[in-house]
Amino acid sequence: MLNRKYQFVNPKLSFEPYFRSMSKPGLPSGTRDFGPETMLKRKFILGTIENVFRLHGFRPIETPAVENLATLTGKYGDEGDQLLFKILNNGDFLAKADEVHLREKNSKSVLGSISDRGLRYDLTVPLARFVVMNRDKLTFPFKRYQMQPVWRADRPQKGRYREFWQCDADVVGSNSTLNEADLISIYDESFTALGLAVEIRINHRKVFDAFATFLGGEAGLSRFMQLIDKADKIGFDGVARELEAAAIPNAVSLWQFLYEINQLKSNHTKLDALQNHPQASAEEMERAIQDLNVVFSLVKPQNNFILDLSLARGLSYYTGCVFEVTPNPNGLPEGFNIGSIGGGGRYDNLTGVFGLKDFSGVGIYFGLDRIYDIMEAANIFPNTAASDVRFLACAMDESAFPVAVEIVNLLRKNAISAEVYPSATKLKKQLDYANDRSIPFAAIIGENELKNKEITVKNLTTGTQSSIAIENIKENLHLWKF
Amino acid sequence: MLNRKYQFVNPKLSFEPYFRSMSKPGLPSGTRDFGPETMLKRKFILGTIENVFRLHGFRPIETPAVENLATLTGKYGDEGDQLLFKILNNGDFLAKADEVHLREKNSKSVLGSISDRGLRYDLTVPLARFVVMNRDKLTFPFKRYQMQPVWRADRPQKGRYREFWQCDADVVGSNSTLNEADLISIYDESFTALGLAVEIRINHRKVFDAFATFLGGEAGLSRFMQLIDKADKIGFDGVARELEAAAIPNAVSLWQFLYEINQLKSNHTKLDALQNHPQASAEEMERAIQDLNVVFSLVKPQNNFILDLSLARGLSYYTGCVFEVTPNPNGLPEGFNIGSIGGGGRYDNLTGVFGLKDFSGVGIYFGLDRIYDIMEAANIFPNTAASDVRFLACAMDESAFPVAVEIVNLLRKNAISAEVYPSATKLKKQLDYANDRSIPFAAIIGENELKNKEITVKNLTTGTQSSIAIENIKENLHLWKF
Repeated sequence: MLNRKYQFVNPKLSFEPYFRSMSKPGLPSGTRDFGPETMLKRKFILGTIENVFRLHGFRPIETPAVENLATLTGKYGDEGDQLLFKILNNGDFLAKADEVHLREKNSKSVLGSISDRGLRYDLTVPLARFVVMNRDKLTFPFKRYQMQPVWRADRPQKGRYREFWQCDADVVGSNSTLNEADLISIYDESFTALGLAVEIRINHRKVFDAFATFLGGEAGLSRFMQLIDKADKIGFDGVARELEAAAIPNAVSLWQFLYEINQLKSNHTKLDALQNHPQASAEEMERAIQDLNVVFSLVKPQNNFILDLSLARGLSYYTGCVFEVTPNPNGLPEGFNIGSIGGGGRYDNLTGVFGLKDFSGVGIYFGLDRIYDIMEAANIFPNTAASDVRFLACAMDESAFPVAVEIVNLLRKNAISAEVYPSATKLKKQLDYANDRSIPFAAIIGENELKNKEITVKNLTTGTQSSIAIENIKENLHLWKF
Repeated sequence: MLNRKYQFVNPKLSFEPYFRSMSKPGLPSGTRDFGPETMLKRKFILGTIENVFRLHGFRPIETPAVENLATLTGKYGDEGDQLLFKILNNGDFLAKADEVHLREKNSKSVLGSISDRGLRYDLTVPLARFVVMNRDKLTFPFKRYQMQPVWRADRPQKGRYREFWQCDADVVGSNSTLNEADLISIYDESFTALGLAVEIRINHRKVFDAFATFLGGEAGLSRFMQLIDKADKIGFDGVARELEAAAIPNAVSLWQFLYEINQLKSNHTKLDALQNHPQASAEEMERAIQDLNVVFSLVKPQNNFILDLSLARGLSYYTGCVFEVTPNPNGLPEGFNIGSIGGGGRYDNLTGVFGLKDFSGVGIYFGLDRIYDIMEAANIFPNTAASDVRFLACAMDESAFPVAVEIVNLLRKNAISAEVYPSATKLKKQLDYANDRSIPFAAIIGENELKNKEITVKNLTTGTQSSIAIENIKENLHLWKF
């Protein structure tokens, strides 16, 4: 009765690429599909980080991919506005467009009348919007994490995509430095759990603010921060030359001062040395040192934790501590070079852009794509990360299907991933499938096995095989677990 | 030294809604934010289903939100094309537009020149594209699951959103009915694990095909399927009246025949009765009965599993078995009415739209939003579903922070979610936070506790409290686990 059912289609034989003028399908530039093995490894990273977030009392939120352009525009600078993906209004989208602008093909002027919405560009602006819209319902301090894709119409290149994931954790509504300490612990525990050794760098915006007058004012300060941020690329001398060329008052001497402190061994020694500059504004410097002291006294990370006075990332945006995480080069293949895989800091006015003042935020992000690339290159994904089916039941005859289904059901009830090959085809074909999927055990159920009420289990890694009575399978489940 | 750091900002006091002419932020119509509690419950549903998928050997893939319009257009009918969200080309998007069409404000003609990409409309077309593009790398049968949002520019209404999630599992490249049986088991095990009693209905397209001639040809058959699909809304008589009005040959008599079989108790009895119609095409009917027999013989579900000959959902698309899942009304509040929460079936030509022939697919979906709504309405989420922080350490003085951090670290190492309230403010305020977040235990660490090297642990559910020596915390961890 079952004879017609268990056929298998050979996919390789029936492809006609340009069948009936249909063009080969493709992906938009800068986007990617993630196949099963990549997905399982990405989920391993996300799951590991999420678990740490949860242990620290952070809770998930999700915001829509589609936001009003009014929410997004003007938040990321002019360049950011250019890089927003805009969605065409539905229906007769030209109806409201200005005829003169259309005739002039003035894209910029027409835009506002044909597009009201855009794709999420990051997770911080949506967080600010969410907090403002839900401020009466939320419990503060509000500790949230968010793991979702974002879109940027950047020119795609190696390692840079137009659709990519961000994983953020932020605390909103508390200016306690305990939060900074907690976020450093989250980095430390997450990367330890991933098996990826990292260096966590910290600095403080107020260290620089303390030298604003010394550097001749805000303009000099801002340029100084921009230039020293290149230290990891062009070194001490490179930065010194550029500072000299920029003619910022006292810049080279300050750079020398900070650079020398950076060479000291312990973070506490560095803090002590930092206090000794006679031209620093006492108030700003004290605040920076106080914050850093709190973090250093509360966190005892397993990874390297370094006060790095040349770290100035995004300091135009951050107002207190700043963080940056890079892989520890000792754990990486020779010559492997990759930038930061995490970062963040304190921003005193998160929700100001939406009219809600005095809401301090502090947050971090994990760079999922780069973490994936490093773990893949350094081959440090645990075997379990992409763990798949453990057990394939191979029916040699359709009459074996009911027994095969019963056996895999038993395994699944005991948390062992198992499947029946859906066709009673040649054993070689079924075992090829198991090998392609890296399934370690295959149970053969043929006429003999049915008669003797047993299964023949083949270990596909070692090639050994043994018979197990069906009634004894329960006692042997441990053999097939991870 | 720490005195300035542990202050808490009161968010309620500082909101200025129309601060500096900034308008109140909002969400695009038909989109939603998901706050922490909703997210945890959604993750519980997705995680439960995902676990069953994995036990059955299905593996995840993800495809980009943004697809080429060439991939999407023409796959969902004219109405679907209307409902696609289109993305404006980047940069000077009007440059390539036809001037005459612009002057005429002809949106339809202009569209092709200003938009090349759109948002994913479902997960089936991307799966077909993925299979075609990766056919040489994939192992067939290819069993994948996919849980991602999709976008449709539908008119938003209660329960219908423009951005919503789909959760699909499909098998591609095998026409064995074992797959249908496996998918029914996945439904059964998933809803059992969720604690939601359901009814799983099955039917077969070929049952109807067998009567094509009897109904006067394809047109009559197609209309017949459309009309009887309304049976759950308008009943036997309603359908009979509409069939009569539609003047399809033999339609009322066939409806009577199918309806009477539907009243029989067992699925096997129904199959036997179905074979007895003298006007059915033997070949089609035999195939249907063969498939259904395989499924009924291999699956022993815990939920109601019903052969429903009035089920005709999407039969213009499906070619073999079709499925539909509805909540079992016995488990629901009186008067609670909701449609299907799952469905699917066999489609013989999944990848044909992209030129790759003879690839049979069979799949199911879970309706996440509706499942969430039902479980919320019927109050069947387990307590653990939205489980949050278990333990809040409350420092009464800043000098208690290092001890507080040490204690929560110990708890986290033992998989207990814990946090320190980030400011040494009044106890009442800290306990209010714990209550708002439903944190069940609070540890008070003040001057006395520090002196006696102990903590005072308050059970916020019962109100009782007790002292525990800090060195004995390790032995008491079980008290705070779930």
